[in-house]
This record gives sequence, structure tokens and C-alpha cells, in this order.
Amino acid sequence: MYSFRNDYSEGAHPKILQALADTNLEQTVGYGMDPRCQAAADLIRRLCAAPDAAIHFTVGGTQTNLLVIAALLRPYEAVVAAHTGHVNVHETGAIEATGHKVCTVFSPDGKLTPELVESVVRGHSTEHMVLPRLVYISDTTEVGTVYTRAELAALRACCDAHGLFLYLDGARLGAALTAEGNDLTLPDLAALTDAFYIGGTKNGALFGEALVMNAPNEHFRWHMKQRGAVLAKGRLLGVQFQALLEDGLYFELARHANGMAYRLRDGVAALGYPFPVASPSNQQFPVLPNSVAEGLLAKGYEFETDHAADAEHTCVRFVTSWATPASAVDTFLRDLAECR
Amino acid sequence: MYSFRNDYSEGAHPKILQALADTNLEQTVGYGMDPRCQAAADLIRRLCAAPDAAIHFTVGGTQTNLLVIAALLRPYEAVVAAHTGHVNVHETGAIEATGHKVCTVFSPDGKLTPELVESVVRGHSTEHMVLPRLVYISDTTEVGTVYTRAELAALRACCDAHGLFLYLDGARLGAALTAEGNDLTLPDLAALTDAFYIGGTKNGALFGEALVMNAPNEHFRWHMKQRGAVLAKGRLLGVQFQALLEDGLYFELARHANGMAYRLRDGVAALGYPFPVASPSNQQFPVLPNSVAEGLLAKGYEFETDHAADAEHTCVRFVTSWATPASAVDTFLRDLAECR
Amino acid sequence: MYSFRNDYSEGAHPKILQALADTNLEQTVGYGMDPRCQAAADLIRRLCAAPDAAIHFTVGGTQTNLLVIAALLRPYEAVVAAHTGHVNVHETGAIEATGHKVCTVFSPDGKLTPELVESVVRGHSTEHMVLPRLVYISDTTEVGTVYTRAELAALRACCDAHGLFLYLDGARLGAALTAEGNDLTLPDLAALTDAFYIGGTKNGALFGEALVMNAPNEHFRWHMKQRGAVLAKGRLLGVQFQALLEDGLYFELARHANGMAYRLRDGVAALGYPFPVASPSNQQFPVLPNSVAEGLLAKGYEFETDHAADAEHTCVRFVTSWATPASAVDTFLRDLAECR
Amino acid sequence: MYSFRNDYSEGAHPKILQALADTNLEQTVGYGMDPRCQAAADLIRRLCAAPDAAIHFTVGGTQTNLLVIAALLRPYEAVVAAHTGHVNVHETGAIEATGHKVCTVFSPDGKLTPELVESVVRGHSTEHMVLPRLVYISDTTEVGTVYTRAELAALRACCDAHGLFLYLDGARLGAALTAEGNDLTLPDLAALTDAFYIGGTKNGALFGEALVMNAPNEHFRWHMKQRGAVLAKGRLLGVQFQALLEDGLYFELARHANGMAYRLRDGVAALGYPFPVASPSNQQFPVLPNSVAEGLLAKGYEFETDHAADAEHTCVRFVTSWATPASAVDTFLRDLAECR
Repeated sequence: MYSFRNDYSEGAHPKILQALADTNLEQTVGYGMDPRCQAAADLIRRLCAAPDAAIHFTVGGTQTNLLVIAALLRPYEAVVAAHTGHVNVHETGAIEATGHKVCTVFSPDGKLTPELVESVVRGHSTEHMVLPRLVYISDTTEVGTVYTRAELAALRACCDAHGLFLYLDGARLGAALTAEGNDLTLPDLAALTDAFYIGGTKNGALFGEALVMNAPNEHFRWHMKQRGAVLAKGRLLGVQFQALLEDGLYFELARHANGMAYRLRDGVAALGYPFPVASPSNQQFPVLPNSVAEGLLAKGYEFETDHAADAEHTCVRFVTSWATPASAVDTFLRDLAECR
Repeated sequence: MYSFRNDYSEGAHPKILQALADTNLEQTVGYGMDPRCQAAADLIRRLCAAPDAAIHFTVGGTQTNLLVIAALLRPYEAVVAAHTGHVNVHETGAIEATGHKVCTVFSPDGKLTPELVESVVRGHSTEHMVLPRLVYISDTTEVGTVYTRAELAALRACCDAHGLFLYLDGARLGAALTAEGNDLTLPDLAALTDAFYIGGTKNGALFGEALVMNAPNEHFRWHMKQRGAVLAKGRLLGVQFQALLEDGLYFELARHANGMAYRLRDGVAALGYPFPVASPSNQQFPVLPNSVAEGLLAKGYEFETDHAADAEHTCVRFVTSWATPASAVDTFLRDLAECR
Repeated sequence: MYSFRNDYSEGAHPKILQALADTNLEQTVGYGMDPRCQAAADLIRRLCAAPDAAIHFTVGGTQTNLLVIAALLRPYEAVVAAHTGHVNVHETGAIEATGHKVCTVFSPDGKLTPELVESVVRGHSTEHMVLPRLVYISDTTEVGTVYTRAELAALRACCDAHGLFLYLDGARLGAALTAEGNDLTLPDLAALTDAFYIGGTKNGALFGEALVMNAPNEHFRWHMKQRGAVLAKGRLLGVQFQALLEDGLYFELARHANGMAYRLRDGVAALGYPFPVASPSNQQFPVLPNSVAEGLLAKGYEFETDHAADAEHTCVRFVTSWATPASAVDTFLRDLAECR
Repeated sequence: MYSFRNDYSEGAHPKILQALADTNLEQTVGYGMDPRCQAAADLIRRLCAAPDAAIHFTVGGTQTNLLVIAALLRPYEAVVAAHTGHVNVHETGAIEATGHKVCTVFSPDGKLTPELVESVVRGHSTEHMVLPRLVYISDTTEVGTVYTRAELAALRACCDAHGLFLYLDGARLGAALTAEGNDLTLPDLAALTDAFYIGGTKNGALFGEALVMNAPNEHFRWHMKQRGAVLAKGRLLGVQFQALLEDGLYFELARHANGMAYRLRDGVAALGYPFPVASPSNQQFPVLPNSVAEGLLAKGYEFETDHAADAEHTCVRFVTSWATPASAVDTFLRDLAECR
């Protein structure tokens, strides 16, 4: 049975495997200083309309988050994040392990607003408290929602007013930029954030994230090496991002994942199950009776069931990906109907 | 012209690429909890005759070193290493960034001995000094030398006498275990160290190291996640190590790399250039007149020239790999002869 | 006008100054290994009925908190604290600077309960999250409340059930142990916690806290030195704690501070001002109309006014100490009555 | 028998105790924001001819060293120190615990020179190595030697040429500035270093160091609080430094300590014992036959005997202080003569 557990259950899109095979015996220097990485970086700068941005390729999301935060903050400075923020909940204290507190604020839809950020800033006034200095957001958020251009611009203005960095975790950026209701573009992100990353792992790469940094950070490669984040055969990252971005494959894959999510969402909704938070992207969070969820698991479907909604219902998570076939969704929906 | 700069200049051995392609659309759980990683771990335990060892797969060497050291030591405890040790010189303070001092001792051949270790232990007697607690060695060393079984057993006894962990960095373990004069085996390493890793990156994998831990460390995966060292599509590591280890490819590739190094070494020596440290493995360090080194660079050869021997000579480094063709070595030797 | 800002506004009780003068020219070894510290440690073990406890003397509370937590936890382990906990709010991320996350839970009266602790434990189930490992409480709490023996015993049982350390911050332990309604004793604390400290700074010493550790921690002095927490003339701490504890001065001073707080509390209440949280100790938190608070400040009184209760009222803090004269309270109450 | 173990064996100079007693019942705000600290800071700025310097008061030397280094460096940056440097040997890895490597260079007299600093800088060229960024020196050094104005100016020029901070640990600054051969003044130190501290602990205070910072560091108090280095009754530090510095007591005490050291040195030398390193300050390091050293210990004298010179001789350390009476030195010399 199909696994809707995550968007990294398979390997890579075949075009990426092919690109790796095609370049396999080229000899290059290591550590991401090779022509493939340089070409991919140039391509990203072009797509972002950010000719002066520094581009760094990393292997995974937690690694990228801790690198950026540790590189931008001084020891007494802190992160502002939604209570659901990945850095707060699901990175085993990776940010704190670099010495920095994560100050959280409750946000039902997973998004930060200027008001929420300012409530944290106001609460930190003296040297007896950390100094909030970087706003961490993700697009899509942990609950699948996306930022509009106006919302992101408002956060930027708030950050400027309070001397804060704005960092956007783009683990699922493809899904965000191709979501219903999205009006953000890569150039918008480059213009409105101090740093963000284009997530490859969850959108068809074997692995890899492309960090776009506008914040000055001349020695970022020193940070990377110190954290064990420099890949010896760095060109693997350049090759993959070239393949993903040179002709729009990245967006095509994300659009497919979202499309499969909508197909699933609409089918689930037609069966009458509610979605407490409306997600326009490739993660869907319906509330199912426990008996239905157990029925699906018994059939062999895989998905997350972490959040009890009440004693008899569970808020589950279904994730679709670049590799999800429409037929898998349709079969699933038929099986779901049977579980009632 | 051929690059002798490093043993990670190419991609992966074709069998590994094929294995990745063959398993590409399998759906698995992430983070290394998949059947491929479990099978590779079982295989490694079998090859090491270490049925109780914990096996963890990581992406690179610096990452592995910092993980093991941070996991095994308490804050006030320190590492003992040769002055040339990779953790001391070439990891941008990665160990110190986890809070631990690296206590170094001078070693001309890059190896530690009980006497050298004890000289460090003796110098640290009170709470005003760090407590040496882990001996870091690598096989091969940074200068290409290898440990004998007797040498490693002596270090083990020394560590037992002083309550020290013994950790072996196996970035080039394939080259070590197939080197002239080597009498160590994987079961020896598992029996004599608290932890060691089987390096894949420098011996034919796209990336990846397989850590073998005997030291109890129930929560090592928490450490991994906290340092950003859990690969989402973890099965990539399992697939590669299965391909490398299931039928001896790992040793075959290393034997080839060493063979090419000997061919190069013998040719260079025949031209009269000295090797201050005799290396029986895939890194060779002859001393060349600067004019000769420059001549080779002018022809387009790539290799490291970091160490001036004197005003007119440079101790260079030539590295061969699983991918080095004999013809490249022969052409190089002809060109070298011409550079005189 | 009198300052009710804090309980460390003056120097030390005269008996302590005298003890320092009397021993001033004794030559002793440094770093707390001297006979004065040993005698004070023996005395504390006796008073705590804890013959095997390790006693360490430190200079201040934040220093003590970060030392204990960094010494007891492994990198991936975390602290559980009330949202008002000193380590969460008022130590500039000192705990995070040692690498550990502080997991907070909302508690209106500043106290933790087994239910609150378990709600945090339940939320942390996999290696993608930190592992809660130490429960941090303080007695008195940040809002002046105190634990009963039954409450502390229940926390101990909860900690035992979940493999958690229980650490009690005793910055105001004197005030707690002499508070109305308290039934805890030093031997109770030694029996029920893994570590706690007897706060000197806020109860008549120039400075100094006495840490009582039952949790095994053989190398705690290494931790202390590493964090810059070993006082060269360590005997200053021994001398002060001997003077405080040898004949009950410590409790006498705390009883006086509490008595002055009750006098102030009763007077304020008599004027009709409410106390949202009832505090039986030397910190009192009435809600005053802003005009009244401003009137007191205009007269020169000092006290904290950080928490707006609503647009027209402020929840202020008045702190009394070993040095507060009854006449200062009485004058203050008269002035308060005038401010209406 | 007299202890020559250290210069912090006694309490404080009586004038300091008196000042603490005189101000004991003043109510002040805490944390070093009080009028006493402000007056002491103004006095220090005046004595240093450094009207714009920031002055911070801390409790001890290791604490000060780790604070300055952690505040000035980014994560990948490192310290350059002599192999005997206090931060390298005697602080239990306090600097590494803040994440920074200490790069050492051998220096027989404990002093750094531009040549030694540059040898470290040259060896660190890429992102695979730490970036040396701060030169740590002490005056007096660990072996009692002192810097001349020309030597310090040369280091300053070297630091400027290489973009390095220059930080001077002044634990024994009084002894240095009053030593034979010294030509440095407080204004020189303020002009030539980025930060230095005036050590109180080893020159007559109960405790306390006064840090003079020219390097911009607006949020230094946040660093202090985060490291547990803010003293609640901060005014104790201000009171002591006022007493030490307002009328030259600080230099008078140091001159006395040095004078006693010279008396001891000359007496020891007259007996024919050699001093491998000539120290013009209050630490003296003669080489004694082991039998003589043991004879002195048997008589009850205390001093350090850490360094074996050869199988039959020990390089011992005698330290004099503000409190050492001439009679104690004379008695000691008579007893030494008897031990032959």
C-alpha cells in the first residue's frame, strides 16, 4: 500500500539520477568549489534576480537551519519562531546546541505576523534576557499554510523596524511557490529575506538544499566546515540543483505534488471529514475517526497519526510528493470510503 | 591532465550508481530506519564479528568525528591526538565547537603510541586542566602510514590502563586494510577500539561513512539529529554500503588505489626523489624541486603543494583512488621525467 | 526613601563582615579547598542529614544553575521548567548557552506538578526531539509561592518514574523554609532532590550559594573551573556559610524578611489592594492603580513595575530583606495611604 | 611556616575591608549599575586616559578571559597564545567550552612576539582551518616576565597588520607595572590593546578584576549575564576598586610584593641556586635540588613543585604578595640555607 508518510520516501527524480551518472567520472575539486556548483549558484542568482547573493549548498534542512542561525547570531541573541516551528520542535535542540534560545509564540496557522513578533520583542528588554535577533519562518509552514507577498513584506518591515534578521526555511519551498493562493516568487524571497533556502530533499533531489544569503557573511564556509556541513564531493549538490532548476523541473515536480494533495484533500472532504487548518500545499491534515485511521493502517497505508484531536478522533497527516501517482490517491480514496 | 589532488575527485563506482538507480522508487521510511540501512548494518556487524555493535551511517568524516567525540565526552573531557591529526588541523575547530579541547603531541609519522598518550595524560592532573578521555587516531594517518595489530593492541592496553576511549577515524580505512604491511582486519578494529568508521567517501561511494560503535551510547541518534547529521533519505547510505561490502568491492577498490600509488611511488623514486615518510597507502609525499613541481602544475596536473621542505623544495602530495587508471600514472611519470 | 527593589540591595549582615575580618590574614590554599570551606561543608551535611552529599560553594545563582544543568545533562537532554522559571526568563539564555533546551509549561502559581511535568515528557518521544531529563523548580518560586513536603514528594516520585533529575534553585530558600505554610526542612530537600542550593546572596551574605549534590558527579570541580566558577579566595564562601549556618542566623534573617513582608502585605491589603497570587514569603505582588504606583515612585520608593495588569493598573513587586527595618515598612504604608 | 604558594592566600588589604564595612548598609541597585561601580569606572577611565573605554567588573580571571574571548570572536575564530598561556593550560578548557580553539606556539619566556604570532597566522589559510583572530598575552606572564612598551607596540602593529584583536590578561598587572624594567603604564595598555584587565584578586582585593575594553562591544553585559558573571551585589567590586585605585594603593601593594620577591630571589641566588628564566616580578622560579625542596616542605613551607628539572632537581615557584612580611622572607632564607 502507498505511503503518504513523507515527501522523501523515494529516491530522486530520474533526470537527477541521469545527471549524476552523466557527470560521474569528471574530476573536480571538492567541497563545492567545482564548476557544477558554480554554475548552479549562477543559475540560482539569476532565478532570484539577486546577483550579489551568496549561494551555499548543504545536505539537509536541520543542518542548514543551525548553520544560518549560528552564523548570524552573537551568543546572547535569540530566534523568534512559531510554537510549531521546525527549529523549536523537531530538531532535537539543534539551535540550542549552538548556544541560542528559541523564543516561541503561539500561532494556530503556523505563521508569524508582525504582532506576534513584536510581542516577543517587547518582552525582552534588558541584559537579563536574551536579545531576539532573527525571525525564523518556513514556507510552507509545518501545517501546510503559505505566506502571501503582503504578509512577507509586512514581516520584513517589522524586522527592519526592530533590527531583526528574517530567515525563511524553504524545506518545502517548491510546494509553497506553486500552491493555490501563492503570489510569492524567488526574486520576492531574495528581496524580502536575509536568507532562505530552496529545498531539494523534499522535492525530487536525492538530498540537498540551496541557501541564498543576502546577509553579509564572508566566512560562511568556515561555519559550514566547523559544523561538518561541507560535502567532500560537493559537486553532487551542484549537479542536482542544475537539473532541478535549469528548465523548471523543480516547479513542475512541486506542482504535481500539490495537485495530488488537492485530489486527496477533495476526496477526503467529499467523505465529510473536516480539515481544521486549510492547507493549500502537499501536506493535508484531516481529522479522522480513530476507527477509520486504524482501518487505513490495517490496510497497509502509512501516514502520521501523532495528534489526537479528541478521545475518538485523530488529526492525521497525508503527504504527497513529486513521485505520487494519481492512481495511488484514487485507490486510497476508495479504501478510505470503505473504512467508514 | 590527471588530478592527483584527492581520492574524492570523481563520483561513485558504477556499481553504486546502479544500486541507487535500482532502488530509486522503493518507498521507505526516512532517517536511516529503512530496510536497506538495516541490512547494511547487519552486514557490517557480520564482517566485523561484532554482533552487538551499533552501526550508524553518516554523510562525512568531520561530521562523524564531531559526533563521536561530542557523544562520548563530558564537557571537561578532552581528546588526545597527534599534531597532524585531522581533528586538530583540518576541521576548522569542529571539536572545539562542541566544547572539547584537543590536546596534541608531536608525532613525526602521524601515529600515536602509548608513550605519547601517557605524556599527555601525565600533564593533566587537577581540576584546573582538562581531563584527557579519548584517544583519536586515524588509519591510514594523515601522512599515509598504517597501524599494525600490535601497535593498536598496545594503544588499547594503554587506554584501558588510563580509562580512555580509543576512536579510530577510518576515512581511508580501505587503503589501510589493504596496505603493504597491514595485518589488521575489521574484527580486530571492532575488538580493539571503542568506535571506528569505515570510510566510504574516499573509497568509491558518492558519500557516506559507516560508524561502528562498541562504546555504549543508547541515544546516539539524538546526537546525530541535534548536529544536523541525519540524512532524510537515509537509505542512500544503506544502499551504498551494501553495494560496497556485500561482495568485497570495498577492498578491491582500495587495493586498486594502493596499487596505483605504489606504481607512482616506485616511478618517482626511480627518478631519485626522496620520500621523507614512507607511505604504504594511496597518499604519497615525495619531495620535489620547486621547478619540477611547477613544471607539473604548468602541464595541468593537480596535487597539493602545501609544505615547503626548504627554500628550493616542496613536499607534495599525490593521491590515487579507486578511479585512477594505470595509464594516467604512466603518463604522469613520463611527464615527471621530462620536468627534470 | 526605602528601596523594596530587591533583597540584595545592602551588603552583608554584620556578623558576616566580622567573620571575614577575623579570618582575613589566615593563609589558606585557594579555590575552596581550605579548612573554612571544609568546615562549612561538614556543617551543611550535618544540617541536611546528608553525610554523603557533595557540597560546592559558588558565587551566584545563574552560575550555579548553569553549572548543575551542564554537569548533569548530556547534549541532547533538556530542562523542564515553569514558564516563569528563572532559567527560562531571566538568565539571558545561560542554559541554552551550555547547549540545552529549556522546555516550558504554563503554571499560574510558578510551581510545577507531576501533571505539568508529564505533559512535557509525553510530548517528547523520538530522536527528533530533545529528551527531557531534569526538572527545574525554585523554592520560593518567582511569584513567591512555596512547595509543601507533599508536593515535593510527588514531584520526586514523578521524576523517579520518568528517569528525571530534580533540581531545586534555592536562591530564596531561607524565605521558603521560614514561610507561613512551609513544612519542608533541609533534610527533606536533601532526601527529595538530586541537587539544590542554599542561597546566601539574597539572605544576608555578601555573595555565595551552597550547592548540595546527591547526584553522583565526581568531576564537578572540573565543570566549575571550566565555567569560571571557582573563586580564588574560596575560603570567603566557607567563612560566610559558617557564620550563617552555625547558629541559625540564616533562618533568623529569613524569618525577619518574611515578617516584614507580611507587615507590608497586611497593610497594603488593608487599603483594599488585591494580590492576584498569594505569596507567603518576602516578595509581595499587589496590583496598584498606576496613579498610586507613580505616586510612590515620585516619593522616591523603589520597586519593580514590570507587569501591567491592565491599562490602569500595575502588578508591582515589593521585596523585603534581612535588613528591612519595621519602621521603613510603616513609613511606606503611611505614604501609600496618602497616594490614594 | 609561611606559604609562598600564591598571592591569594590571605583575604584583602585592611583598607578594602574597611571600605566594605563603611558602605555596607547603603542601598543600591544590583548587578554593577550602582554609583560605586560608576565612580570606580570613571576613575579607571581617568587613570587609563581612556575616556571612551567600557569598564566592566568581574569576579575572577578565568571568567574574564572566557567572557572577552567569547564576546569578541565569531564561532570559527581562534585564539593565539603561548604554550604556557593560562587559557591554554590552566582553565580546564574554558575557552574551548565557549567553542573556540586555542592555537599555541612555543615560547621559552612566556611572551609572544610578532614572529611567533605570524607563524600561527601563516599556518591557517583556508576554511578547513580556524581563523586566528585574537592574540592572548598576559603581563606578567606565567613565568613572571614582563613586556616592554616596545614589545607591546610591536605586537599591536602585528595585530593591526593581520586584523587581530590584542587582549592582555592582567591577573598580575600590578606586579608587571611595578616590575624592574617595566616601562608600560595604564594609558599605554589602554592605547595598545583592544582589551585588558586590572587584576584585583592577586593584588589585595577580596576578589575582582576590572576589564577595560576599547573593542566595541555594546552588549557585553548580555554576555556577562549569560555566563553567570554578573554579581548581584555588584557594588562590592566598585567599592574595592575605588579603594585600590583612588590613591595608589594598588601600585603600592604590588611594589611591596615585588620587593619581597627580589629579597627572596637575591637570597636564593646568593646560595647558588639558578633561575632558568629571570623574573622581575612576584613569582620566582629557582631550581632546587630535590632534597632541598623536600627539606623546605618538611619544615612546613608551601610552594609549587610541579616541574621536574631533571631527576634530581625541581623548578619550584615562590610567590610573594601584598601581605608578605620581610621577616617571613628572611626566616625562609635562613631555613633554606639550613636545608643544603
